[in-house]
Amino acid sequence: MTTSSTIMDSNSFRPEDMADLDERTRSLAERRAILGPSYRLFYHHPLNLVRGRGTRLFDGDGTEYLDVYNNIPSLGHSHPAVQEAVSRQLGLINTHTRYLHENILDYAEDLLSTMPGELNHVMFLLSGSEANDLAVRVAQAYTGGTGIIVTSEAYHGNTELITKLSPSIGHDQPMAIDMRMIPTPDTYRLRTEDLGTWMAEHVRKQAADMRRHGIAFAGLLIDDIFSSDGVFPGKPGFLKPVVEAVHELGGVYIADEVQPGFTRTGTFWGFERHDVVPDIVTMGKPMANGIACSAVAAREDVLDAFAQSSPYFNTFAGSPVAMAAAQATLDAMREEDTMGNARRIGGVLLEELRSLAREFPQIGDVRGAGLFIGADVVAPGTTDPDYPAAVRLIEGMRERRVLTSLCGPFGNVLKIRPPLVFDESDVDWFMSALRDTLRNG
Amino acid sequence: MTTSSTIMDSNSFRPEDMADLDERTRSLAERRAILGPSYRLFYHHPLNLVRGRGTRLFDGDGTEYLDVYNNIPSLGHSHPAVQEAVSRQLGLINTHTRYLHENILDYAEDLLSTMPGELNHVMFLLSGSEANDLAVRVAQAYTGGTGIIVTSEAYHGNTELITKLSPSIGHDQPMAIDMRMIPTPDTYRLRTEDLGTWMAEHVRKQAADMRRHGIAFAGLLIDDIFSSDGVFPGKPGFLKPVVEAVHELGGVYIADEVQPGFTRTGTFWGFERHDVVPDIVTMGKPMANGIACSAVAAREDVLDAFAQSSPYFNTFAGSPVAMAAAQATLDAMREEDTMGNARRIGGVLLEELRSLAREFPQIGDVRGAGLFIGADVVAPGTTDPDYPAAVRLIEGMRERRVLTSLCGPFGNVLKIRPPLVFDESDVDWFMSALRDTLRNG
Repeated sequence: MTTSSTIMDSNSFRPEDMADLDERTRSLAERRAILGPSYRLFYHHPLNLVRGRGTRLFDGDGTEYLDVYNNIPSLGHSHPAVQEAVSRQLGLINTHTRYLHENILDYAEDLLSTMPGELNHVMFLLSGSEANDLAVRVAQAYTGGTGIIVTSEAYHGNTELITKLSPSIGHDQPMAIDMRMIPTPDTYRLRTEDLGTWMAEHVRKQAADMRRHGIAFAGLLIDDIFSSDGVFPGKPGFLKPVVEAVHELGGVYIADEVQPGFTRTGTFWGFERHDVVPDIVTMGKPMANGIACSAVAAREDVLDAFAQSSPYFNTFAGSPVAMAAAQATLDAMREEDTMGNARRIGGVLLEELRSLAREFPQIGDVRGAGLFIGADVVAPGTTDPDYPAAVRLIEGMRERRVLTSLCGPFGNVLKIRPPLVFDESDVDWFMSALRDTLRNG
Repeated sequence: MTTSSTIMDSNSFRPEDMADLDERTRSLAERRAILGPSYRLFYHHPLNLVRGRGTRLFDGDGTEYLDVYNNIPSLGHSHPAVQEAVSRQLGLINTHTRYLHENILDYAEDLLSTMPGELNHVMFLLSGSEANDLAVRVAQAYTGGTGIIVTSEAYHGNTELITKLSPSIGHDQPMAIDMRMIPTPDTYRLRTEDLGTWMAEHVRKQAADMRRHGIAFAGLLIDDIFSSDGVFPGKPGFLKPVVEAVHELGGVYIADEVQPGFTRTGTFWGFERHDVVPDIVTMGKPMANGIACSAVAAREDVLDAFAQSSPYFNTFAGSPVAMAAAQATLDAMREEDTMGNARRIGGVLLEELRSLAREFPQIGDVRGAGLFIGADVVAPGTTDPDYPAAVRLIEGMRERRVLTSLCGPFGNVLKIRPPLVFDESDVDWFMSALRDTLRNG
């Protein structure tokens, strides 16, 4: 079986592909040695993108690409309202949270108005990684436990603490001694009538194993679209018994909304699909359409144990500029109804993909919520993941100037996660490129 | 003895001061409850700053303040070149490091050209905290050890890993089980002829203690201006025997340049003052004049063990916008010669402060490098820290519209760390406000 870390390598540009590149691309790729071996480039023929607008990207030659991958510029690339808000605030002032500033207060109040009333406190940070790093400590301080449960293919970020709670980084990476994993809720391959009960049982089992090893359970950290697991939205509400189990066990439920949050899945927050209220919510990526900004929202009593005892300061977070960018993004999400568009266009896309899957048996399953869709590439007639076919598919799409990516433990799930301003003409381009690639390779 | 955490509280606005505030300030301060109890405000009468230019800041009433504290806007507040570069790049494209982009390569090459040739690789992140979090893992992967030595009053950041290597956060905060501390190189109170040898001996002693507890030594993580320790630049070169000891012990020397770096101390990097070459350098705060940007620079062989084995991706880091802001900042530092100004004006300031100290015995010691200066507030005729007098001093300065802060384990050191465009007229305002406060309270 291919592990995630080898997939992260194979899915990327490799030094042996260097000779195939045109001179300019090769020169840029070669200069990347300065960044060291951790950095990965997408595609065997990497892209040098220099301009973007809406769902479209342009390389140095002016060639146009359709973006079906990037979830940070949810409002589309180079959104003028965000540019204007950042530029304006940079011309005024950009300090930190140890002075008073209206931007952070206005935005904090506006952001929390999108959530259930219990979630009445918010702290700002820079990245989803930092948000999850803080959220885990908040959960530990509140419960007095340390043990965190995640799914077996989860990715929650890049700090030392969170890397050790991110098994998808690779089987060779050490996990935290007090963490436990539950299986991915793979609705395509699992034979279970009741996904929620199945998952709740796994949580109970792992919490019991923690107890046996002298570890006190602190909470469950999950991304409710199960993105790195392979995109498994499941039926609305299936997380209800899972969250109940977590609370019965004395833990907290941390909703990692870095990927599903901010209207992508057709509700403002992914957890709304399940009619559950998290104890802690983390968010990031699309929050300020590309300006570094993330947050941890929590109930007052949950946050208190940490915050009363630990000073916490984050230099750049919550700055007037970050807050201006986040506010402009939230305003534009409402004005442009990205939630409605995610639901409507996401629905169209899901239907078209399902009809395509009936035509092409190598698409074994299509599932999604809003504009977060996964298409499972398999050996026809089976549910066996076909990773090489999936790589050929995204490389073929790239040759047709359509940008997608892969996810899941076998790296065989086509990840369809475009900017939220994706429209009918984008769907047409995407579907015809996909059909053509499936047909002609 | 007062601990750092109680100092962090006392030095800040307290809820009981609420009644003294004007209506608008009170309303803003009250609304901050939404951010939870971790957030601290400076001053008993907090500031609502809405505009800044150069070294000057303005509140909502148009009142002008002199900034002698903020080290993020090194080029001065609202620098037009940074605003222009960010705005321009936001109008073009802002993606991530999995596509090729010239900005990150141009900047990486330019940044490394400021360092010794051995430091030939660089990875980009968002904050000094993230940079130190990564640097410690790089050091651990390279050495095979885990034990990190820091000074007893160090602050290196806010992630879980780095909080446990930041004793200045407070005596109640748990430190890492495999870390050790060496004393602050307090040149004012220590009776030692040879600070470097003294410090090297402490490093050897702590590494031996690690060994005895079965912990392999990974490295020394220090800020060479010893900022949170109370600002102790020491004599140029004093770190040489310390770095030698670290290498003899098989560890790496991580220079945390988040505070001293980028020309503040009168050399481009703080470590240059000591004629030593770090194995790893971390940097942040002033790097992009307020846009979230940080980095880890390292020797290729040091970085390799981590980078070859661990994929690492940071969503917002190294983005075209962050790199445009960092490049504009570096360019402006050269054009405006912030290094020369830090040396020249820093020298003037140091002289004036030393002459003031001869007049006012409550200033026991003045020390600094470039525009990073500490003034030790003591009980006259002794070296005993006088924390209440220091608080009265910065509150008195604030009433005279001059913004400073305190540092050190006793919270009694006036921290003088202005934007690097500080000029003679700023020195005059600062010195007359300081003299007046010392005289009249």
